[in-house]
Amino acid sequence: MATQKRVGVILAGSGYLDGSEIQEATLTLLFLDKRGAKVTAMAPDVRQMHVVDHVRGEPAGSEARNVLHEAARITRGAIVDVKAVKAEDLDALIIPGGYGAAKNLCTFATEGVKLQVNPDVERLVRDMAAAGKPLGFVCIAPVIAAKVLGAKKVKLTIGNDPATAAALNALGAVHVDAPVDQIVVDEKNRVVSTPAYMLGPTIAPVAAGIERLVGAVLEMA
Amino acid sequence: MATQKRVGVILAGSGYLDGSEIQEATLTLLFLDKRGAKVTAMAPDVRQMHVVDHVRGEPAGSEARNVLHEAARITRGAIVDVKAVKAEDLDALIIPGGYGAAKNLCTFATEGVKLQVNPDVERLVRDMAAAGKPLGFVCIAPVIAAKVLGAKKVKLTIGNDPATAAALNALGAVHVDAPVDQIVVDEKNRVVSTPAYMLGPTIAPVAAGIERLVGAVLEMA
Repeated sequence: MATQKRVGVILAGSGYLDGSEIQEATLTLLFLDKRGAKVTAMAPDVRQMHVVDHVRGEPAGSEARNVLHEAARITRGAIVDVKAVKAEDLDALIIPGGYGAAKNLCTFATEGVKLQVNPDVERLVRDMAAAGKPLGFVCIAPVIAAKVLGAKKVKLTIGNDPATAAALNALGAVHVDAPVDQIVVDEKNRVVSTPAYMLGPTIAPVAAGIERLVGAVLEMA
Repeated sequence: MATQKRVGVILAGSGYLDGSEIQEATLTLLFLDKRGAKVTAMAPDVRQMHVVDHVRGEPAGSEARNVLHEAARITRGAIVDVKAVKAEDLDALIIPGGYGAAKNLCTFATEGVKLQVNPDVERLVRDMAAAGKPLGFVCIAPVIAAKVLGAKKVKLTIGNDPATAAALNALGAVHVDAPVDQIVVDEKNRVVSTPAYMLGPTIAPVAAGIERLVGAVLEMA
């Protein structure tokens, strides 16, 4: 057996409207485990931007939840503060989607192309890229890649949404349309992306795209 | 294409310590979608027994969460009150595990073999069984089958935990040891079960067992 690849997965809470998209996060863990990777799940230890009721689709008043502690629901408690993880600890890094990626890992949901990225997330993405280690971004998470790696003209997909694609391009990235079950690979920058629930519509085609993403990331690791 | 099978999935919240085991629930949805089933996700519209911090593994004070509204995080909002679903609406029914199945769908976690099952969950399981429609139970969820269908000497697995197996037998069921990636099928009662995270240890073998369970349930539907 080849050396076990060490793969970081940054989560953003638990639930697609205010945290990580649960299905995308779980599928990422599934395909990493099937291929024998050693996963380090992590999240920032910060308060969520807000809490959204997932039946009503509306913010749930003044309730406060913590991104790290909610993300731990997806990983059965096996999770660490992203602050504690360095690029040298990992061979690859993947960020699943969900609004939480655009609300808790960066501020794209509220500030668009003026987004700020969580400093620990930005550091880890930047250091991984500088070390030539592969990165995977799912769903809306490519906005983080565009912000941090836009100067490298990183090639990315979020599916085919014109406004989001335009935002990626405005940040210096090069958006490429892709269907839900496919990936876009930037060989030079070693960045892989897949649209997932930016397109959907159901879990099976989302899984096909994430399986391809995990495979491509591990091949480069 | 054959007629699309209508499969109910009863959830118990979101997070293995106080709700549905997120990975088991997601994998159930994945394999149902891959096989073209039409899923009706549901949960009781009741307050969770409690809220558990999934980093610390301890109850999180006095916070209150609702089983249906938390379960909606797993299904992207596509969920209904189990009260509104009748056996005639479904061709099959699956209940994933997690402590929530033993805390919010029944009281096994606190009352053991003296458990009570949520009345709407009990009605639906009983009516499905009476109609000869197949049922699938994952992880700890077989305790619900044992309570509702124990008089039929239903054959079940929860893996190999001696105390839980003894509880199932005390309720009239017949426990059969099984490894994580396998299923136990009661052909007469049309009940399928798999140990999942009663054994683990990781998501890939849990997925193998759930894929077999979904396949066996759909074959009988």
